[in-house]
Amino acid sequence: MERAIDTQLEDLKKVILVMGGHVEKALAQVTAALLSRDVNLFADVHEIEKRINEDHVRVDNMCMNLLAKQGPVAKDLRLIISVLKINNDLERMGDQSVNISYSGKDYLGRKPVQQQLNDIQRMSECAGRMVKGSLDCFVRGDVEEAKKILLMDDEIDALKNKVFKDSIAHMKAHSDDVEASMDLILIARNLERLGDHATNIAEDVIFAFTGKDVRHGGKFG
Amino acid sequence: MERAIDTQLEDLKKVILVMGGHVEKALAQVTAALLSRDVNLFADVHEIEKRINEDHVRVDNMCMNLLAKQGPVAKDLRLIISVLKINNDLERMGDQSVNISYSGKDYLGRKPVQQQLNDIQRMSECAGRMVKGSLDCFVRGDVEEAKKILLMDDEIDALKNKVFKDSIAHMKAHSDDVEASMDLILIARNLERLGDHATNIAEDVIFAFTGKDVRHGGKFG
Repeated sequence: MERAIDTQLEDLKKVILVMGGHVEKALAQVTAALLSRDVNLFADVHEIEKRINEDHVRVDNMCMNLLAKQGPVAKDLRLIISVLKINNDLERMGDQSVNISYSGKDYLGRKPVQQQLNDIQRMSECAGRMVKGSLDCFVRGDVEEAKKILLMDDEIDALKNKVFKDSIAHMKAHSDDVEASMDLILIARNLERLGDHATNIAEDVIFAFTGKDVRHGGKFG
Repeated sequence: MERAIDTQLEDLKKVILVMGGHVEKALAQVTAALLSRDVNLFADVHEIEKRINEDHVRVDNMCMNLLAKQGPVAKDLRLIISVLKINNDLERMGDQSVNISYSGKDYLGRKPVQQQLNDIQRMSECAGRMVKGSLDCFVRGDVEEAKKILLMDDEIDALKNKVFKDSIAHMKAHSDDVEASMDLILIARNLERLGDHATNIAEDVIFAFTGKDVRHGGKFG
């Protein structure tokens, strides 16, 4: 027999997936703006972020309602607590996309420094895969795939280090490009944080479906 | 008559205060290391962060227990949900302090660029006041003071913008100092984030004690 709480948990998962879709779109949009040098594309990200923020408040309210009215325990409770955390991470990803749009707009207003854009694009693709992957794991309760997401964070960190190193070298040799290189460094930093938030989601998935806390170096496997 | 849940909520507040004390100490320590140019002081922050991470797991577990065993509703439920969020923000502040220690260690290994250190110090003091202030509000349920914390974030943002601007100007004129200036920019960014997390806590305090959601431009007052 299906319990009332099961339907509500399914609804919660659906809203999280929609919210995740908005985050993926925001990230794709700011990356496209940057690569195509089309500053108008940055405007859309603010509209998308508004929707992410509305989702954020809605998910919190749904969780509060479930906690107050259903008195969930054990795995249901773990799932709701995880959704509260995932909700926060998705909202912060929206913020990071908006931050990218600000640095991106500055960047497009300057003389182009293209060298690091390939790596930025790879970082964005990696972050996008991590967001999508972590939410797929969440919806399917796939703990093994969630562990793989944790490992993808190394790829994005390595790319960020490369963008930092190359940009600093470029700034030293071309003082006229200091601002543009700095914009790219800040964008790389935002993309790295986006990856961190996806990692948090993967950790929450592992906790929700196994009860194991893998944060702070807790072992999994 | 005192309810069992009241004692447990008081315990929760005490752990949050201890955790907040660790965060304040971590921030004070990395700032002292930077200003006194004593690289050894950075080592302590890792020990402090370990304790913050232990607190983080403990608070989550206490909240889960309360939710499962007491079935809290209304303001008790709001308080517990707020603690879950505050817990996350405090943990991230620990991460930011560790990030500062990494950039700080790099910085101390280079030829000094002192110009921005005054502003960094002011940022750190402001962030420290915000952390302490937001937790005081939380413990006392002081919504009016919490609103003042939200305004302090403007001060820290203005200082960050100044560090960015001055550092970029310095880098353009002194290519040998690009790395050291970049370290200070990253430290300023971390301190700004610390302020953001304190702002989140103040918003959670307002929600916990009034039920009003002031995030995403929601009005208060």
